[in-house]
Parts: sequence; C-alpha cells; structure tokens
Amino acid sequence: MTTSLLTDLYELTMLEASLQSGVSSRGSSFEVFTRSLPAGRRYGVVAGIARVVEAISNFKFNEDDLEYLETTKHLNKETLKYLSNFRFSGNIWSYEEGEAYFPYSPIMRVEAPFAEAILLETIVLSILNFDSAVASAGARMVSAAGTRRVVEMGSRRTHEYAAIAAARAAFIVGFAATSNLKAGQIYGIPTAGTVAHAFMMAHDDERAAFTAQILAQGPATTVLVDTYNIENAIKEVISIAGTSLGAIRIDSGDPAKESRTARALLDILGATKTQIVISGDLDEFSINELSHEPIDGFGVGTRLVTGSGAPTANFVYKIVAIDKGHGLEPVTKLSAAKVTLGGRKFPWRVLDSNGKAVMEYLESIGSPETSVEIPELETKKLRPLQRQIIRDGEPELKTQLKDIRIFHQDSLNELDESARDLASGQSSLDTVLRDSRGHLIKASN
Amino acid sequence: MTTSLLTDLYELTMLEASLQSGVSSRGSSFEVFTRSLPAGRRYGVVAGIARVVEAISNFKFNEDDLEYLETTKHLNKETLKYLSNFRFSGNIWSYEEGEAYFPYSPIMRVEAPFAEAILLETIVLSILNFDSAVASAGARMVSAAGTRRVVEMGSRRTHEYAAIAAARAAFIVGFAATSNLKAGQIYGIPTAGTVAHAFMMAHDDERAAFTAQILAQGPATTVLVDTYNIENAIKEVISIAGTSLGAIRIDSGDPAKESRTARALLDILGATKTQIVISGDLDEFSINELSHEPIDGFGVGTRLVTGSGAPTANFVYKIVAIDKGHGLEPVTKLSAAKVTLGGRKFPWRVLDSNGKAVMEYLESIGSPETSVEIPELETKKLRPLQRQIIRDGEPELKTQLKDIRIFHQDSLNELDESARDLASGQSSLDTVLRDSRGHLIKASN
Repeated sequence: MTTSLLTDLYELTMLEASLQSGVSSRGSSFEVFTRSLPAGRRYGVVAGIARVVEAISNFKFNEDDLEYLETTKHLNKETLKYLSNFRFSGNIWSYEEGEAYFPYSPIMRVEAPFAEAILLETIVLSILNFDSAVASAGARMVSAAGTRRVVEMGSRRTHEYAAIAAARAAFIVGFAATSNLKAGQIYGIPTAGTVAHAFMMAHDDERAAFTAQILAQGPATTVLVDTYNIENAIKEVISIAGTSLGAIRIDSGDPAKESRTARALLDILGATKTQIVISGDLDEFSINELSHEPIDGFGVGTRLVTGSGAPTANFVYKIVAIDKGHGLEPVTKLSAAKVTLGGRKFPWRVLDSNGKAVMEYLESIGSPETSVEIPELETKKLRPLQRQIIRDGEPELKTQLKDIRIFHQDSLNELDESARDLASGQSSLDTVLRDSRGHLIKASN
Repeated sequence: MTTSLLTDLYELTMLEASLQSGVSSRGSSFEVFTRSLPAGRRYGVVAGIARVVEAISNFKFNEDDLEYLETTKHLNKETLKYLSNFRFSGNIWSYEEGEAYFPYSPIMRVEAPFAEAILLETIVLSILNFDSAVASAGARMVSAAGTRRVVEMGSRRTHEYAAIAAARAAFIVGFAATSNLKAGQIYGIPTAGTVAHAFMMAHDDERAAFTAQILAQGPATTVLVDTYNIENAIKEVISIAGTSLGAIRIDSGDPAKESRTARALLDILGATKTQIVISGDLDEFSINELSHEPIDGFGVGTRLVTGSGAPTANFVYKIVAIDKGHGLEPVTKLSAAKVTLGGRKFPWRVLDSNGKAVMEYLESIGSPETSVEIPELETKKLRPLQRQIIRDGEPELKTQLKDIRIFHQDSLNELDESARDLASGQSSLDTVLRDSRGHLIKASN
C-alpha cells in the first residue's frame, strides 16, 4: 500500500501553490523537534525512525490515489501530474531510535526541494509523535521496574494498528515481550500471554480451567488466580501443576497485599520458584510503589499505549532554511509566541570526563561532517546525535531492534541518575544553540 | 490483509486450552461496556461499529499468519488446524454508531461458541476504545462550537492509521471536514486544508506567497495571516485577493483578541464576508471560551485525536453467560473490586412523554425480540438500543456515515440540556438493571 494519502490535504495545496510560484524547486531544510517535554518529564525517547524510512519508501501516488485526488477538485492537472511521478529524492538525518531527547533537540532534519520536503510533514509527524510518546512513557516504566520483567499488553486500549507500533516502541525501551501477535510477526518481538477471566468462568470450575490450561500449555505457563478467591486458586493450581508452575497472575485488588500473601502461600506449598505477575492499570508510579514487593513481573497496558498522560510527543516539523538563490539560508517566523529557531542545527551531546551527558549542544556553523571547535567546551567530549538515514531518496538504515534496545540503555546511562526520577522535574539537559554569529543561546524551556 | 493477528496471544492460548477441555464449543455471550465514563464526562459516544464489522469479516488466518504462529511454538497442531479453518459464525448486536452511552451500557453483545467469541476480544476493543474516545471528545467540541464549523486536523498527532479512524469518528459527531486524505478516500469525508507557515516562509515575502496561493487555489481559499504581522498580512492579502477572499486563519497568539482585531480590519477593508478561522491547541473548553468572538470556524487537532484527556474509552469485553448444557446461564466473577454484572442484558433508553431520556434500562429477562413490560416504568416510552450487526457470521450493517451523523444528533437531543455542559459532572443518565429475579439494581458509577 502507498502511504501518500496518510497526509493532510494542505501539503498538496501548498505543493500546488509552490508549483505556481516556482518555490517548489527551492532547496529547503526542515527540522522535527518539540518545544517542551510533557509536564514534569526529564527526557523523551526517540522511536519510529525506521517506520518513517519505510513510509517514505512507499510514499508514491498510485492510480487509485490520483483518481481520488482528482475527485476532490482541490488540485489542478499540473499538480496531479507532478504527484504521479513523485518519489522523494532528498536527504534525511535523524537521531537514532532509542536516543534520549530534550526540548529543541532536532531529532530529524529533512533536506530536499521544497515541494518534496513539504509533502512528508504529516506522515513523519504521525509516526514520530505516536511512537516516541509510547517509548518515552515506557522507558520510565522499565526504569521503575528495575530488574523485573515488563510485558506490553495494551493492544486493546489503542487503535488496532497503533497497537503494533506501541509494541515496537515498548520493546525498544526494554519491555521483555508483547501480547500483540502482529508485532511479533512483523518485528520478531517475543510474544507472551496466558488467559483471561472469561476462560476461567467458561469452565465448570477453576479446577477444570487450570487442568485444561496446564494440559495445553504445560506447567511453565502463567495462570490467573483472581477470578474467585486467590488463596483457594493457588492451592488448587499447585495441586494440579505441582511446584514447577511457571507463574501466577493477579489482575485485581491491592497488588502489594495480594503479592505478599500469594508469595507466602506459594512458598509454604513448596512452589518457591513460581513467579508472581501483576497487571491491571499499572503505570510507572504504581510499578515504583511496588518495588519492594515480591513481584517478578508486570503486565502494562492502557497507560503505556496512551503515553501515561502524554499521548503525543508534540513534535513539530518546521522549515529552518530555504534557498532563495544563494544557498540554504535561515528562515524565522517573527510573530506570536511560537518561536522557531531558524537555521540548520547540527546536534551533539556534550559529555564530561566520566562520560556523563552535561548538555545538548546545537551548532549552527559548519555541518555534521566537519569537526566542531567550541572554546567554551574544550575539555568536553562531543557525541554526534544525527546520522543520515536517507541519501538521495534511498534508505541507509539497517539497524536491528536488538541493537536499538542496547543503544537506548546506553543513551539513558549517559544521563545523570536524577533523570530516572519519576517525580516532576525539569529537562535533564539544557539545550544550547551556538547561532550563526557564534553566540550561545539557551534554547530549552 | 487479514486482521487475525491484530490480537493478543492469550486469545489463542485460551482457545487452545478450551479445545483441550471441550469448552471451546460451549455457547457463550460476551458484552462490551465501560464501568465509568472519563472523569467529569456526562456521556460517551459510540463509534467504530462499522469498522468492527469489517475487521471481523477479515478475521481469517492465511498461510503467512499460520506460518508465523507455528514459529512462536506457543500453539499445537490441533490449534493451528482449527485456526486455518476459522471464520466467525456467531451473532453480534450493538448500539448504533453515534449513540450516546453511559456506565454499564452494553454497547455490544457477541454470541458464539466460546472459541469464536474469545478470539475477537482484542480487535473489537482496539477499534471501539479508540474510535469512541475520539467521538466522545469530539461531540463536546462540536457542542461548544455551536453553529460554527469545526474541521478535524489532528493526523500529525496520532498514529498514521489511527488518524484515519479519528477523522471518521469526528465526522460522525458533526465535524464538517477533515484534513486527512485517506479518510476522504475511504469514507468520502469532505477534506479541507490550506497552507502552513513553511509555505509563507519559503517565499521571498508574504505578497509572493499570497499571490501564488490565490492564483493556484482561487480567492475562496483560506490564507494564513500570522507568519509575521497579522494586520499587515490582512491588508496585503485583501489587496491581492479582493474582498471575496474566503477566509483567514490565525494559528497563534490570543485568539479572542486577534479575531476581534482581524474582524474589524476585514470589515474596514470591505471584506465583510471573509471568514475567520482559528487553530492551535484548541479543545472543547477553549472553543467554548471563544463562543462570543467573531470566529467562523475552528481547526482542531491534538486534543481531538488524543480524546481530550481520555485517549481510550476503557471498554472491556466480558463473558456474561455460558452454556454448560442447559442453555446460556449467567456467569459472574466473585473476587475483587471489578464487579461484572452477569447475564445477558437487553438495553433500552427510557424516554419521558417529551421524548427526553430519563434512564438507561437493562433488562435481563426476555430477549430483544420480545416486548418488555416494566410496571415501574409503565408511563414511559422505551427505545431499544441494540440491533443485530452480524447474523450467523454475515454482516447485516448498511448504515451510511451521513445517516450516522443525523442519528448522533438525535441521540444527543434526547438528553437533558445539562448533558452538554462542559463542567465536570455525573453521567447524564443512571443505568438500571432488572436482574433475572426481577430486582432493579442501579448499576452506574
């Protein structure tokens, strides 16, 4: 399927007007960034880059697409002809997936003729805003869980395709598995899941249900023990499965109290290795509150896929430079409160001698290929943050999800310990821009 | 594409265990409902029903799906064979799309052998939870806007496919148009859109940009006037387009102040019919605050597609009856705080003599085909709320979106005026269940 109609109409009417004025062929540079993190958050996590690359590869207008556009009467024949031959030919750089980001981090830079760059706005933002919102929430949940396993099970609480992207974003930030089979099929993410209360209630009694599950799935399975009475259920299931039962899941009640009672009972019954999994409206805060309880794993759904209060990353896609005949020159919107810092920005993470991040540094001078000399920062190490993902329209990205998971942990480990605090706080790093006159400007909120 | 893997693994492991126990073939009844509305909301709006019907029609396991499932090693050969022949053969009833709902409204009832009903849980909930969250938020925005036109433009702030469903849900509750082209193509929703700031900034000056847009799109277009200075822009664009200019859009600053200033200036310039459109992080509350300003239309994005603070409708899919050999009998979970009212429930909206809704009434006795006699309610009119949408596996739904829009307004008009208040309140209707013993139980939160 083509992705070209996953787009706002105004990208096409702008294209048409720019073909009219000739601005369509001007070189341009657009950046993706957010002006602020969600309230109280200390960092965000980039996700969706590989999905953007794939969407751009399929950003073509087929006959059905063109036929539909013709029926809207919004566009003239010249524009439709341009679209029929459309293929993105520009260059795109981005932060790596899994990388931490901060206010004004330019997580993506698109450079192409204006007509091409403007067409990509909606699809780029849709993907990055959703995937990064989930990754940013998920990273805090994984931090809160510490060494305990966290499983993504939110498919039912978001759009059926968004669910697949959510599972992918969660896996990037360290979730162990997903309940979503399509995510397993497409991305090779491990899948997990056991039974719902309906299964228990459809049987004559709990004993019949446990017996069926253990015969089908083996004793290593996870059984659901809170349909009627948790203690009775634990005794029943251990009598059937024996002490090699994999895990029990508790989905209701007070998880702190229930997990302690269950652990004591399992131990008395000799099932000392049977794990306890908790689910039911968990988020980073409730996971954190349960950190000293005898819980081995968490199933997280609703609050993950809805970004734990921040369901979109609020990224914008803004023009920062245009070639009016003398090469790419900065552009800046003057009116109103929404300030856009004009000009192309090449981002670096400044690290101290211990390898800890101390600043998000944006350089307006030079290009990512040239080395940067910053007198103010001379004793610091600089790690470049963007790499090219599309060159002359062709994808350059070959990262594996398992490598992204490792990269994500490395990126978080660079941050000060306090970045992992769940309590409301400021952005963990200040973002500082050296503008084209060489002045340093603190850009973060 | 098949929809069968847009599913949680546990639906399939439950299937396998139920094949093991023989429970797979037991007749069962599942209901979709929410235990509470989002905090402060007075009603919700059902959306996504037609999408559920379509998803169920495509709920088949093709060779790729089965091959993937085999690689997971979660399922045995008998289960895979069952899935290879799977086709839903049951019956489904639901509320109409656009209908108002309340806590415990059974917005859908699925009746089928347990194996079939359990497989549909995830896909049914994904669709209804997302679509209804958007519709529920959007209905309040449309109410707040009154006679002014509201356009959906949130594609960039949600997953790229969720954006299509969001546009559809918004159209159901009365949005006039969408920016999303795919929604236009698939559902025939009118599309709207003009230009972004990037377009203005890519030109040598505003005059060049306005000229290009008006030449391409004609003077009836909507121009963006807040790139540099709003008053200068208005004077410039009227000098080019003349007083027949369609509309100006203001996307920043204080919309109350800016709209008044702009209206005065447009009138002085003779452009008395040129409309003023406002956009930029609007929601039902900010639209309401602007109700006395000279504003003709609103563009709403982020807050719509994220459900204005409630990004999921929190519907659950619960077994309410199972046939253990004596016909469908109620089942109820006993433990913990999450009470499920067992038994099939046939819902009616109770209307007073003025046609105003006074109660959501759920009848446990009889079936939707039989007439209901309720002594307590004898002077009231009863409107049935469910109708069959799938019969023996075959879709029965043929509703047009334009009819759903009308039905939605009728459903809201039945509610007391106070239902449209934006301030926090209780559910507009109480939900009352007459259980199988004839007792009336107030079920709402």
